[in-house]
Amino acid sequence: MAAATKHVVIVGGGFAGLNAAKVLGNQPGLRVTLIDRRNYHLFQPLLYQVAMAALSPADIAAPIRHILARCRNITVLQEEVTGVDLAARTVMAGTATVSYDYLLLACGAHHVYFGHEEWEEFAPGLKTIEQATEIRRRVLNAFEAAECATDPAEQRRLLTFVIVGGGPTGVELAGAIGEMSRYTLTRDFRNINPRLARIILIEAEPRILASFSEKLASEAARNLERLGVQIWPASRVTGMDANGVQVGQERLEAATILWAAGVHASKLGEKLEVATDRQGRILVAADLSIPNHPEVFVAGDQAHFDHGRATPLPGLAPVALQEGRAIAKNILRENAGRTRRPFHYRDKGQLATIGRSRAIVELGRLRFAGFFAWLAWVVVHIYYLIGFKNRLSVLMQWAWSFFSWQRGARLIVSKEWRFYCKREGMPKP
Amino acid sequence: MAAATKHVVIVGGGFAGLNAAKVLGNQPGLRVTLIDRRNYHLFQPLLYQVAMAALSPADIAAPIRHILARCRNITVLQEEVTGVDLAARTVMAGTATVSYDYLLLACGAHHVYFGHEEWEEFAPGLKTIEQATEIRRRVLNAFEAAECATDPAEQRRLLTFVIVGGGPTGVELAGAIGEMSRYTLTRDFRNINPRLARIILIEAEPRILASFSEKLASEAARNLERLGVQIWPASRVTGMDANGVQVGQERLEAATILWAAGVHASKLGEKLEVATDRQGRILVAADLSIPNHPEVFVAGDQAHFDHGRATPLPGLAPVALQEGRAIAKNILRENAGRTRRPFHYRDKGQLATIGRSRAIVELGRLRFAGFFAWLAWVVVHIYYLIGFKNRLSVLMQWAWSFFSWQRGARLIVSKEWRFYCKREGMPKP
Repeated sequence: MAAATKHVVIVGGGFAGLNAAKVLGNQPGLRVTLIDRRNYHLFQPLLYQVAMAALSPADIAAPIRHILARCRNITVLQEEVTGVDLAARTVMAGTATVSYDYLLLACGAHHVYFGHEEWEEFAPGLKTIEQATEIRRRVLNAFEAAECATDPAEQRRLLTFVIVGGGPTGVELAGAIGEMSRYTLTRDFRNINPRLARIILIEAEPRILASFSEKLASEAARNLERLGVQIWPASRVTGMDANGVQVGQERLEAATILWAAGVHASKLGEKLEVATDRQGRILVAADLSIPNHPEVFVAGDQAHFDHGRATPLPGLAPVALQEGRAIAKNILRENAGRTRRPFHYRDKGQLATIGRSRAIVELGRLRFAGFFAWLAWVVVHIYYLIGFKNRLSVLMQWAWSFFSWQRGARLIVSKEWRFYCKREGMPKP
Repeated sequence: MAAATKHVVIVGGGFAGLNAAKVLGNQPGLRVTLIDRRNYHLFQPLLYQVAMAALSPADIAAPIRHILARCRNITVLQEEVTGVDLAARTVMAGTATVSYDYLLLACGAHHVYFGHEEWEEFAPGLKTIEQATEIRRRVLNAFEAAECATDPAEQRRLLTFVIVGGGPTGVELAGAIGEMSRYTLTRDFRNINPRLARIILIEAEPRILASFSEKLASEAARNLERLGVQIWPASRVTGMDANGVQVGQERLEAATILWAAGVHASKLGEKLEVATDRQGRILVAADLSIPNHPEVFVAGDQAHFDHGRATPLPGLAPVALQEGRAIAKNILRENAGRTRRPFHYRDKGQLATIGRSRAIVELGRLRFAGFFAWLAWVVVHIYYLIGFKNRLSVLMQWAWSFFSWQRGARLIVSKEWRFYCKREGMPKP
């Protein structure tokens, strides 16, 4: 006897949600609704390259409904999910209420400023395409404004870039600004020397890249220094305004401040009244379900999965991807009358890149740095990028950048589309 | 005896200004300042492809200061020019006052709504990257919202696209929406059939493409109809609101309205108190200088150049390009003690493309349409596009689109970069 068709609702089209959907696509006895407030899947590991004018947004994003177009049992809705009723087994999406038999929450994380949310205005984080283009605009505008400035102090402030947070994102941003100022822009200006830009990476811990081994992290630090980046370890930002940052007793005048310090899981988790950790991640069981709610799964940056180490599984793409697939497979197993399997993470290692042709790779005991680590970084990122066209486009742009020392997307685009028609003016940064 | 170094100020980095600068680059006895409020040169003929999600902004734009980096006598300033003092021979750029020996005004044109500037909110024009991404957002959002809508009348309104203006831009926009709805999106939705989208091209004149021959224009009209575009000739838009347009007695409910009807030259020209035409273009002499001001030249969409026909030279890229070069050469001649030459336009013909693999070409008596016209269109546009990398990237994306029937940049990007962090919500279209 065939069972009734089960409805699986997936909230979030990131690595976890999309990969779960792919496993469930065209499977009998299942109907899937994927809800995301965006129309595209974003390849976040390369988002810093959009911010640093090396890639275009479209190179690292693909429309979710096109990726899943051939899965005839999947409906994609572009809506915002505002709440979940665990008892009634329904999800509030926009004005609609959607019931589910299985629910997968994979809503990701966003930046937090440790109680200083007013800092966001001065120091954008890097989680969305909008933020990436905002960072691009600020960095490029700083060089343009410095070229026009006549006061040396103002010029110095405009050419000072402060990055808060020494994790992989902060390191990648600092390295890219270093590369841009030391190589890409050198011949383009007449009144300033971009090579004199000050780039300061501020980290609260005693060293950068805490998740990597000490040896690799110090290798990365040396590579950053070669690009003109100064690292301020064991330093804490205590204040911030439009003109610079306060670091304890010290004050840095800086026109551009970037935030790569703290993240917090999607607020949807806290609305559920289930156990969460300090970063808002939902504590999940061995099969990634919420305790007492076996029909609700959580994956990716929103999940706190205890794998017997000091810290839970980190917020990395391979973790989210494997979690999404494992959850989907368990739904298929259960639908076929079999029992669930606990989730085991297969460590894919971690990588970080530092400017042009330098990276560090750590995979269990295998640890290496330098050009070959960078090649490994290129191969891994191209491999995981979705869609033939995006892969080819990114590979081509990287090849062009590598040989020409240039960046392909040096555009300062305004926020307001009507501005130029109406006022015919350029907004100041 | 060597003459003193002359200072040439160029306002605007479009086809005219950039090509003038290239001729003047590294020439002895000259120093050049190019001022633009943007940091990039924009290849406007392909802007509709950015609006229609086929290309990324960076594919058709290149940083001006990088294009001119090797011209050591050229300084590029990203500033807004707010006025010109013809008597004092100075230009106001931001807070600075720049004196010139020669001035080239090439500030282009913007959209006008014939006294209904309040329509801009409902019907964006297509002159800037910001407007192109706004149009892309509106078009893609309309399909997404229709997929979520439950009321059939609302769904029909969301799937109605009105393009006002049947010139080349309007035809290219309408054709691209036709292609997108009839081919690209067909498999991606579950609740709507994108093929049923209504696309209406409204033209005030008795026929579209008035600058082309009647035969070619009717060929283009037939091609548009094959893509599901309905042409309403001899129709005038009399009203507009957020829900649709009024066309005389008739009313169209439409979520997306695009404006491709009227342009007006940059307002800087009117501030000069020199003779302008109805569209704000400055009347220029045979050498493209302003009468009684031989040291001031005007080129491109801002110039009204009488070449003995019923209408002045049209606002086309080849016109602007040739004018810019001719002006620069006359400055070089004069600087070398020789006399100026009058400007003669070498007709490069005109092209328009209608969706995938159809175009019309008119070059003197040579007139053809169809696939080979489209190939000619591709070759010409790739040839004139600036920079090896942009050419390769665009060619690759076109090849991919041609064989996959897909579009490479189907992203709905928000206007407000802080929105998603703060509210965690999706803005409604």
